Amino acid sequence: MKQVIAARTDIGMGQGKLAAQVAHASLKAYEYADEDVKRRWKAEGQQKVVVKASGERELYAIAEEAKQRGLPSAVIEDAGRTQLEPGTPTAVAVGPAPDADVDQVTGDLSLF
Amino acid sequence: MKQVIAARTDIGMGQGKLAAQVAHASLKAYEYADEDVKRRWKAEGQQKVVVKASGERELYAIAEEAKQRGLPSAVIEDAGRTQLEPGTPTAVAVGPAPDADVDQVTGDLSLF
Repeated sequence: MKQVIAARTDIGMGQGKLAAQVAHASLKAYEYADEDVKRRWKAEGQQKVVVKASGERELYAIAEEAKQRGLPSAVIEDAGRTQLEPGTPTAVAVGPAPDADVDQVTGDLSLF
Repeated sequence: MKQVIAARTDIGMGQGKLAAQVAHASLKAYEYADEDVKRRWKAEGQQKVVVKASGERELYAIAEEAKQRGLPSAVIEDAGRTQLEPGTPTAVAVGPAPDADVDQVTGDLSLF
């Protein structure tokens, strides 16, 4: 079981900003997972992998693909208090779910 | 309500690694919070702030202080699959909790 979080590389997020957006996406997608999946993922060490998304279009494509496959997912849009315009999509999380299912959606993305 | 996550600056984590460790800490501390606190924090937009901790000693001092004040908190120790030695403490999350309570523990730390 794993969760993959894809974050945009094209909007110049600082390191702390990036980490906060990834954490938002992670928690939101986690809450959509079944209790059994949550439990198994945590028991295995709640693996999280952060990868690169080239831009807004790729972010939404990932979310759509995850949805069609029935995987928990969440896109985060920034509240815009700092650095970015309000409503800017920043990151999408896919899973927790079985590794092979997540890889079918995010397997071709590079590690951040 | 907010959650502050302090991550170490002295162990050379890459951006993706940092984000994953922050997300681990965030989720783990979140799960220690009361249901009512969780609900309120999410309703307010689940604010997360990432700040700098100078090293292992400061990380544990933050965790200890949070514990003594009865705030949800969690220290993450890396599984050591990549970049770091197994068991290396990387990040600590404090909250979600009322802003003033969290600030008493992490208020003097710089934004990441």
